[in-house]
Amino acid sequence: MAEKRSRRAGGRAARVALRQAPLAEDARAVWPGMPGGRYKPLTDNECDQVFEAALELLEDVGMGQATPEFIELVTAAGGHMDDNERLHFPRALIHRGIELAAKKFRLHAFGSDNDGVELGGDKVHFSTAGAAVLMLDHETQRFRESTLADVYNSARLIDTLDNIHVAVRTVVARDMETSKDVDLNTAYAMMTGTSKPQGTSFFEPHHVHDVVAMYDMALGGEGEFRKRPFVKANNTFVVPPLRFAVDSALCMAEQVRAGMPINLLSAGQAGATSPAALAGSLAQALAECLAALTCVNLMSPGHPCVMGLWPFVSDLRTGAMSGGSGEEAVLNAAAAQMSNYLGLPSGVAAGMADSKLADNQAGHEKGLAVTLAAQAGANIVYESAGMLASLMACSLEAMVIDNDMLGAINRTVRGIEITPETLSTQTIKEVTKEPGHFLGHAQTLSMMQTEYIYPEVGDRLSPDDWVDAGAEVAVDRAHAYVTKTLATHRPSHVSAEIDARIRQAFDIQLPPV
Amino acid sequence: MAEKRSRRAGGRAARVALRQAPLAEDARAVWPGMPGGRYKPLTDNECDQVFEAALELLEDVGMGQATPEFIELVTAAGGHMDDNERLHFPRALIHRGIELAAKKFRLHAFGSDNDGVELGGDKVHFSTAGAAVLMLDHETQRFRESTLADVYNSARLIDTLDNIHVAVRTVVARDMETSKDVDLNTAYAMMTGTSKPQGTSFFEPHHVHDVVAMYDMALGGEGEFRKRPFVKANNTFVVPPLRFAVDSALCMAEQVRAGMPINLLSAGQAGATSPAALAGSLAQALAECLAALTCVNLMSPGHPCVMGLWPFVSDLRTGAMSGGSGEEAVLNAAAAQMSNYLGLPSGVAAGMADSKLADNQAGHEKGLAVTLAAQAGANIVYESAGMLASLMACSLEAMVIDNDMLGAINRTVRGIEITPETLSTQTIKEVTKEPGHFLGHAQTLSMMQTEYIYPEVGDRLSPDDWVDAGAEVAVDRAHAYVTKTLATHRPSHVSAEIDARIRQAFDIQLPPV
Repeated sequence: MAEKRSRRAGGRAARVALRQAPLAEDARAVWPGMPGGRYKPLTDNECDQVFEAALELLEDVGMGQATPEFIELVTAAGGHMDDNERLHFPRALIHRGIELAAKKFRLHAFGSDNDGVELGGDKVHFSTAGAAVLMLDHETQRFRESTLADVYNSARLIDTLDNIHVAVRTVVARDMETSKDVDLNTAYAMMTGTSKPQGTSFFEPHHVHDVVAMYDMALGGEGEFRKRPFVKANNTFVVPPLRFAVDSALCMAEQVRAGMPINLLSAGQAGATSPAALAGSLAQALAECLAALTCVNLMSPGHPCVMGLWPFVSDLRTGAMSGGSGEEAVLNAAAAQMSNYLGLPSGVAAGMADSKLADNQAGHEKGLAVTLAAQAGANIVYESAGMLASLMACSLEAMVIDNDMLGAINRTVRGIEITPETLSTQTIKEVTKEPGHFLGHAQTLSMMQTEYIYPEVGDRLSPDDWVDAGAEVAVDRAHAYVTKTLATHRPSHVSAEIDARIRQAFDIQLPPV
Repeated sequence: MAEKRSRRAGGRAARVALRQAPLAEDARAVWPGMPGGRYKPLTDNECDQVFEAALELLEDVGMGQATPEFIELVTAAGGHMDDNERLHFPRALIHRGIELAAKKFRLHAFGSDNDGVELGGDKVHFSTAGAAVLMLDHETQRFRESTLADVYNSARLIDTLDNIHVAVRTVVARDMETSKDVDLNTAYAMMTGTSKPQGTSFFEPHHVHDVVAMYDMALGGEGEFRKRPFVKANNTFVVPPLRFAVDSALCMAEQVRAGMPINLLSAGQAGATSPAALAGSLAQALAECLAALTCVNLMSPGHPCVMGLWPFVSDLRTGAMSGGSGEEAVLNAAAAQMSNYLGLPSGVAAGMADSKLADNQAGHEKGLAVTLAAQAGANIVYESAGMLASLMACSLEAMVIDNDMLGAINRTVRGIEITPETLSTQTIKEVTKEPGHFLGHAQTLSMMQTEYIYPEVGDRLSPDDWVDAGAEVAVDRAHAYVTKTLATHRPSHVSAEIDARIRQAFDIQLPPV
């Protein structure tokens, strides 16, 4: 018995030693860009039908409010304008647009320490995003208008959260006066707040070039951004059904000229701006994104684009958007599948809880939606951290808890490796003889970090131990994490010298660190 | 403009009228037994390898602690005992067991108003389950020991929750003195608390016949239960790795003789009683369940069984079970896939949050796990409502919120119907002309209940409206739902007269209503 006990204690000591060792990069249980696609909401035949419906819409109905530049490109390539000023895209032209389009591309990270992410195929990444107008204030835990400081603080927080791979601002800087102030300062706050690959957005076409000039300055010289773009534009180019949003379409052309990758974002809302039938809502979003994709590729073949189908749904009792519903979850997963099916980079929206707080409802709504989008193989799962109230609000505490969720979901995307070794028949044969359990077995020790991921703020104590430890829930620990991070994490990948130069050249309203 | 406004108002009035109309049974957005299987964590080739590993384990290692009856059956059919008293199952015998096994069966509901559920194929159902020893008390919201009243109250609550299709007790009646008191009174409390198809469990073989005698009495005569069994046994027949739990194996034989369907439940814990490698943990659970399935089918070919692979995992830092992890989620989804792949009814465990309260962590843990199990096509997703603290505790409030989650998940299992009509090209063509939105369109109105499901306690208000309405979260509304339900819902499918007879014949310790 003494021997047995000491062997078990040895096992425990070994486990403790192992878990205190630093984790080698290549020995982690999850990583960005794991292949998804094991969940297929639609059959191939159904994908074909959705695609065919999109082609029919583009040929027969076309897009309203096209810009002169897009009209010229499309009509020169075989399209036509009708009497109602709608721009029609023949099937062959859409096929050509898809053929020309980039099938994958790298969204770089700032500087060169990090390779960024490769978007395309069935590689899955998690991103923040949102244009929430409210912040669930970190101190008061009440809603208030969002500010530029919130944009910066959320970027700094994202910078520390392993399972968020791409950063897009989650809130609107409502304390800015002009749309130019918003675009420039948002881009600045994101760039300085995190070195992760990121996205930003623009109100006016000329802001694109101002912001790229700022990126160039940060990267050390004119033309640098174009060489290693670390920011893509999130361009909501459509006023559904099937009409261009003129300013955004104008911005799109400038983004192409500036060498900035674009997320072509269609966000119809089923039952309001797209059909209540989920299938129709999907077909319409696909049509809209294919129209934009074709325009971009006629301008600049192979320009890096993400097919940003974000089909939203309504609660039909009230007409309000419901970001946390099952209909929303399955629809965005199908949207990811459709883009991947066509061989195009995919970005969808998932994690847009209806709940106002990071409560149980928000948790299950996010768990469902993000799981399905990721398993469907979305190259970017947008909105996957921090969002509440159907995108009306953002919470930093929610973002920290969601990071745990994303890690667990990513673990399921990785799946289960089946090899003669992992099937463990030899291990089981050994253990059934002696000692009858796997606790101290070499396989168990060796797999502690490679097979399992551990939550940052999620709790796994027993009820007794949890009560003894103060009965904290995840949101309490997340709050402490946010407090500590905001007090201590000051990214410095943009040097003080360059920062000073940027501040001299541009009206940066974020106070210097 | 006046005309336009009145048309929109008309649309709203029509929507309000529609949502107040009672919902026809055939016009609901979700229902039990929807086909899953669009998520396949493993390839067919990987399924073959897992199956092959299980066959290898049963042939080479076999099962320890087999009962004399099982030894006789298996050795007579080609198996053998080795010098270490392990019972070996040749590959051909397992194949024969699978061949003999029921591929689907109906678990009835009490009486005849309800057809119950058909288990098999890829039909998905949600069930409670658990043997928690703690209740998160409805009144105090603190942990305390669970009681028989909790079993009854949870059954009554389940009886009202649409998205829970099968009822298994979630807590142990710790206020009972003997194991017989537990078995009999648990079965009684579940039977009288809900008319849904259900499951129960047994400590001792002879309790099986006592309980079936009670069921017969409730159904109106001897032999009635066998004709329309509305209860299956949840039989945890294994002490992993690869050893029978003797009492449970003895119970199993009695359950076969009593005509009671059986959930063959293997609950190894990766890193402790099964390999840390998820693949090995899956192979071992499959082997264990196939051993039991073969024994049952040698006793009684075609006896209704569920392959109850419940592969649990450990947090390897502490050795404690982690029910809410991503590893747990993907493993149980793969377990469902394996049973379905072999053509056998599947039951897995998902929704076993690690969190102690129904908080955000519990929500995302459940959302992830239940989503994957359901999409993988689990015929029964056990543990899918009410469980907290890795099965150590149950909360009635959690159960009510989880019911919302199950509805949303079921909606995603239903998926997106693709037909010329749902693709809505005609509707879109109409709307792009006039009025430019889908709010009042006939399609929108017609799909309000058939395409969309609405939560019971989940909130979808805007932040402002939500604050005005008192800033309640889902758990507050769930609390009110529980209070009301426990005060008012008294199922009476077992008549007072029969109840009195049962109480005369058996030591029922639940006070009469």
